[in-house]
Amino acid sequence: MAGTQVNTAVEETLDPDDWAELRALGHQMVDDLLDYLRTVRERPVWRPIPAELRARFRVPAPRAPEGAERAYHDFREHVLPHPMGNIHPRFWGWVIGTGTPFGALAEMLAAGMNPNMGGGDHLPNQVEAQVLDWCKEMLGYPATASGVLVSGGSMANLVGLAVARHARAGFDVRSKGVRHAAGPLTVYGSSEMHSSVRKAVELLGLGSEALRLVPVTSEFELDLSALERMIAEDRAAGCQPICVVGNAGTVNTGAFDDLGVIAALCQRERLWFHVDGAFGALAALVPEYQGRLAPMAMADSLAFDLHKWMYLPFEAGCTLVRDADTHRRTFSLTPDYLAHAERGLAAGELWFSDYGIQLSRGFRALKVWMSFKEHGLDKYARLIRQNIEQARYLAGLVRNAPDLELMAPVPLNIVCFRYRAAGCDDTTLDALNQELLIQLHEQGIAVPSNALLGGRFALRVAIVNHRSRREDFDLLVGEVRRIGKELRESEK
Amino acid sequence: MAGTQVNTAVEETLDPDDWAELRALGHQMVDDLLDYLRTVRERPVWRPIPAELRARFRVPAPRAPEGAERAYHDFREHVLPHPMGNIHPRFWGWVIGTGTPFGALAEMLAAGMNPNMGGGDHLPNQVEAQVLDWCKEMLGYPATASGVLVSGGSMANLVGLAVARHARAGFDVRSKGVRHAAGPLTVYGSSEMHSSVRKAVELLGLGSEALRLVPVTSEFELDLSALERMIAEDRAAGCQPICVVGNAGTVNTGAFDDLGVIAALCQRERLWFHVDGAFGALAALVPEYQGRLAPMAMADSLAFDLHKWMYLPFEAGCTLVRDADTHRRTFSLTPDYLAHAERGLAAGELWFSDYGIQLSRGFRALKVWMSFKEHGLDKYARLIRQNIEQARYLAGLVRNAPDLELMAPVPLNIVCFRYRAAGCDDTTLDALNQELLIQLHEQGIAVPSNALLGGRFALRVAIVNHRSRREDFDLLVGEVRRIGKELRESEK
Repeated sequence: MAGTQVNTAVEETLDPDDWAELRALGHQMVDDLLDYLRTVRERPVWRPIPAELRARFRVPAPRAPEGAERAYHDFREHVLPHPMGNIHPRFWGWVIGTGTPFGALAEMLAAGMNPNMGGGDHLPNQVEAQVLDWCKEMLGYPATASGVLVSGGSMANLVGLAVARHARAGFDVRSKGVRHAAGPLTVYGSSEMHSSVRKAVELLGLGSEALRLVPVTSEFELDLSALERMIAEDRAAGCQPICVVGNAGTVNTGAFDDLGVIAALCQRERLWFHVDGAFGALAALVPEYQGRLAPMAMADSLAFDLHKWMYLPFEAGCTLVRDADTHRRTFSLTPDYLAHAERGLAAGELWFSDYGIQLSRGFRALKVWMSFKEHGLDKYARLIRQNIEQARYLAGLVRNAPDLELMAPVPLNIVCFRYRAAGCDDTTLDALNQELLIQLHEQGIAVPSNALLGGRFALRVAIVNHRSRREDFDLLVGEVRRIGKELRESEK
Repeated sequence: MAGTQVNTAVEETLDPDDWAELRALGHQMVDDLLDYLRTVRERPVWRPIPAELRARFRVPAPRAPEGAERAYHDFREHVLPHPMGNIHPRFWGWVIGTGTPFGALAEMLAAGMNPNMGGGDHLPNQVEAQVLDWCKEMLGYPATASGVLVSGGSMANLVGLAVARHARAGFDVRSKGVRHAAGPLTVYGSSEMHSSVRKAVELLGLGSEALRLVPVTSEFELDLSALERMIAEDRAAGCQPICVVGNAGTVNTGAFDDLGVIAALCQRERLWFHVDGAFGALAALVPEYQGRLAPMAMADSLAFDLHKWMYLPFEAGCTLVRDADTHRRTFSLTPDYLAHAERGLAAGELWFSDYGIQLSRGFRALKVWMSFKEHGLDKYARLIRQNIEQARYLAGLVRNAPDLELMAPVPLNIVCFRYRAAGCDDTTLDALNQELLIQLHEQGIAVPSNALLGGRFALRVAIVNHRSRREDFDLLVGEVRRIGKELRESEK
């Protein structure tokens, strides 16, 4: 009977004691969250966190249960009222997407099923494969390419550059390491390139000194003759150029490098061509941009985000690689305990862990799949165009205001401008616009971020927001002029 | 009037036309998902995917909207019935956590608020800081340490090893690259170490040849004298040892390296001490294991997962680093457009992007914070102990069965065993157990995975499952014996 006794020992679980109670709480969460999103326009974009609220998040870990209701209550009372603001129609800071209500619901379903997307023969992996195929289709990338969903643009660039290093080192860099190279393995991209490329180059052990920042034209596009010259000089100096990064939409101004010419140059020079298309690649959904972006199809690897200009909740980035085999050989590593089987769960063709850094991976594909189905790509195309048109509209408002100055061309969805007052020098204007930006945040009006362009401080409005309306840009311009005038007058 | 006309142009959004309809759909999702989780025990753990179902995930991207209801319907009909299985009480494959219903609801809230956790002064960042403090507290790690939530164990090890490389290269490896080193930068860990360490070493450009696999004892623990000898030999050969990786729970058998002795050796040899505590670190919640794990506090960096033995939904890993400044200096990179401000959203102390690879980061902290509050740490401690006791219980069942053989010690939550038939040689047993494992999957009975131990194929049961009961292990043993016998008889 001892055995029986052991078997009936009280065993616990993290499942609820009362499923009906949790169901009611779940309904309330849905109600509260949808109300919160429906009414977001009525609230300030952002507001400062009171000191006493910060103190609530400096307490010891709970040993005893507080219960689901209490945990949710604390979220609703203390966390929810102080969002970053990027769900608000007047958030245009950095390049931060908005998310959608349906995307949030899909995340619940993904976490409920909770598959490990590292590999194995289960349906969620089929969903990711489907989403990757859809991404190739919508960006005009070859259907035979491989791909992997990643956490975002930084990881997407890292994966692309890791494949570049593997493919172009000229030796087995996985086993020998970077030290084995005869000369520095150099990487090229414009001075407007995103900092995540530098982070990737550093992480890969190449050293940021091996990252060449190519000058840009007055349109903030990579200067191609400078690129050619730098490659030639580096080769002459004993370096080993391996990769050029082309920008499809730079972070500061949304500029496009001439991808076709870079692709041809890379082919000539036998260099890996990586495109950082963080948000700009998605402009390929809009017919007017398809010509400029068509050469993306020639990229050896292509990095972009779905949580930026596809408006999905975090995290959803993607790397596509033209040569699937090279992609797999960069990362694949199958120890005994991860052996793929012929049948059963450990069978199947889809082992995404062979195509990236993660072994355990979440089901981020589900929100993409469900959202693409919900809206259809044509609607995303219209919304991306809407954001581009809003940028042009804002640029027009800036041009028409005597006290505002446009600081860069507006080729896409980013507008850089500043408040300008007669008789102010640039240094004064830098300080004034810096304070103006902070007041826009503090007053909860809008959240632009900033850019330094030619050394000058600019307000930077990057529109990847499906909730923005033209009236929001009218309001922004009115408020910038009001605060600018107030700041100017308070100085006198 | 032209201006007015432009302002009233029809602008679209991805928000629902009818919020009440989406609310009703959200309620249905909650109901369906909770029912699905409540009844998971009644279904097979896993089942093969029919070919016609796979074909449904090979279609062109939807251009026109299918609508939220249809997208959800397709999920429920086609995706939900074919999970990986790790939510099931009899899933013990690899080391894959279960998730919880409340964790899934928290993910919806996180995706609804959708903050970018890369930085900025908003409350979600305070939640992550709080969660990191709680992790330090529960693992006995110094409160002054820095930390960052990451996607999982692979990324947690990568972050730790990146800091190790930065701290111990002896030169500015970020700018100079690995090539600048006088000799190979070598890393040490036992032959039982997880493959993600090799992946990290490769990615960091050190080369897998610089990763030294130290032999293990019969208990699968790192052989300390071998480690000392290898370091001395490497130094004599012109290598530059930088880091030792200690295992707190190896992937194959759950063995613990002697962390205290390794810590002392690292101090003596001025090496970085990284602990891979993927799941084993969490045993520190259980008093009996605290002595063995106390030396984790001496680690320079500590990697572990919350989506494994804290039962949270994917993705939730963590790296803690003893010296916060070194951690920050490994990753911090602040271009103009990411400049931190004095006030406003771009102010604040919490810039997690300075502590890892990601710039855009999701709100994975919320599910951790809410779940810790829901249950309290004491309950997690009881569940971890419950899993350990279940492993001992299973080991007992194996020991008592004449046709089963325990293949390794059971120091923690992992049981490696095989079906054994009189008169069979090892090669026959390897094939028999391999088929047996597949049939366990195919018949939907249970999902163990496998290990190769001393070259022999073992069924491997890793218990990080809050739904498992002792009766599940009774069933497993009965079915293994039944299938083993059937396979044996069919051979005759």
